[in-house]
Amino acid sequence: MIWDANPGARAQAREMIATTLDDLAGAGAIDDSPRLLARISLAPDLETAVRGASYVQESVVERVDIKRTLYDHMDALVAAGTIIGSSTSVIPGSQFLMDRANSARYRVAHPVNPPHLIPLVELCPSPETAPQTIDYVAGLMRSAGQTPIRVEREIEGFLLNRPQWALLSEAMHLVGEGYCSAEDIDAVMTNGLALRWALIGPLVVGHLNAARGLKGYFGGLGEALGLVRNSLRTDYVPDQSVIDAVHDVLERHMPLHSLPEQQAKRDANTLALRTFLNKLR
Amino acid sequence: MIWDANPGARAQAREMIATTLDDLAGAGAIDDSPRLLARISLAPDLETAVRGASYVQESVVERVDIKRTLYDHMDALVAAGTIIGSSTSVIPGSQFLMDRANSARYRVAHPVNPPHLIPLVELCPSPETAPQTIDYVAGLMRSAGQTPIRVEREIEGFLLNRPQWALLSEAMHLVGEGYCSAEDIDAVMTNGLALRWALIGPLVVGHLNAARGLKGYFGGLGEALGLVRNSLRTDYVPDQSVIDAVHDVLERHMPLHSLPEQQAKRDANTLALRTFLNKLR
Repeated sequence: MIWDANPGARAQAREMIATTLDDLAGAGAIDDSPRLLARISLAPDLETAVRGASYVQESVVERVDIKRTLYDHMDALVAAGTIIGSSTSVIPGSQFLMDRANSARYRVAHPVNPPHLIPLVELCPSPETAPQTIDYVAGLMRSAGQTPIRVEREIEGFLLNRPQWALLSEAMHLVGEGYCSAEDIDAVMTNGLALRWALIGPLVVGHLNAARGLKGYFGGLGEALGLVRNSLRTDYVPDQSVIDAVHDVLERHMPLHSLPEQQAKRDANTLALRTFLNKLR
Repeated sequence: MIWDANPGARAQAREMIATTLDDLAGAGAIDDSPRLLARISLAPDLETAVRGASYVQESVVERVDIKRTLYDHMDALVAAGTIIGSSTSVIPGSQFLMDRANSARYRVAHPVNPPHLIPLVELCPSPETAPQTIDYVAGLMRSAGQTPIRVEREIEGFLLNRPQWALLSEAMHLVGEGYCSAEDIDAVMTNGLALRWALIGPLVVGHLNAARGLKGYFGGLGEALGLVRNSLRTDYVPDQSVIDAVHDVLERHMPLHSLPEQQAKRDANTLALRTFLNKLR
């Protein structure tokens, strides 16, 4: 059951889900999209959506004040056993999930966009979350074909956005300060690093890089790693002029009017890649 | 023609190349491995290797003193038209390529390991490199099926290792300070970020993430990006105890004795992935 404060979004939701299910069925990822669609319904109000639910996924906009107001409402509406996962991708849950009647059953469960294509879900407790809540959501996500990972202690941006934005910030530094073009820093990924990382994570990359495993890798890097580490600019804040210049380069390849088409291509390719990698592993 | 100061390495080189060519032929990436192998010969000494060569790829160990000594020798041996690319992955070429008779024809050309599988080559001039040297090496690399990218100004670690180590350092920070397990931070990549990055680079990811392209992406991130950026620890220097602990976790999955087998699997999978992505793009 779906609810959105915006009636327009509510009306679009079923259509978007129907299209997504058809895409997945077309790619052979699911069998029976009409049956799945029939299991999804729209709630007329928040109370109908959450009352009696065993699990609620909250996905409102990334603003603490809005999340707090919503949890103020939900906390009074949910049944005693209801578990709630928040889709926050950056804000630690303790800023809006605590000091509530049902805090023990609230936690962050951040799915990665688009969640029907990227299986990762970050689970992060607030200090008031009960351990059995963590285990329940991990099991639920696994049963839905997702890959849950655990954030043991709260930190801004959790496990996905921190490394992602560390890399993005250094990329913007290199382009913004004139070390390379936007095209070339993207090629570093698509023709370089991602050919490693799609198969094995950054730690295993190091482990397989040296005869003595990760110890040998860090031992061998020695001064070189220090030289680079000390000059990284992952605190780089690009001026609006830098953002505009990079945007203009990207727009030459992908004009704004073509973005829906490019997004559809990205999604189709992501599904094909995931299917390919699942067979390979 | 190949030369190595170590006679043992010289002896192994042909065997390694033969195996690599057979692997590539087995995967359908090349046609005729015996013919290619016949074009490669071993030089008895440095002079024979470089004299009369149109292009030399220097790949000695990543130490400035050793590189300087080698270039002292080579500078006296090479013909007037010989171009030299250095495989340094971190050290700016100006530390060993300058103040030589032939400096204008020397530059960094860093191939990514393993270079027969990962097509990227970083080209970086020293302040004394001639522009036509850059263009020549870019053309040569393209004709060999590689993807050359250009570093416009020298910087430690160039374009590949900077973002790679920014991400690795933050990953080690998260594991080393107890925010997550080694397995989970690697899963962030293989089940999350790499499903984006194998298809499109980090800048295009942002451009396709918002209706207004990259401008909209940075506009929408707002405070969230700042919150994460200010708390990144890409300057994190893991204690030996942290490296050892992460190594031990990795070794449980991949014992040291299994590394050659795991490396062979990684290489075969990289080739399969690259072939898959080339068809998709």
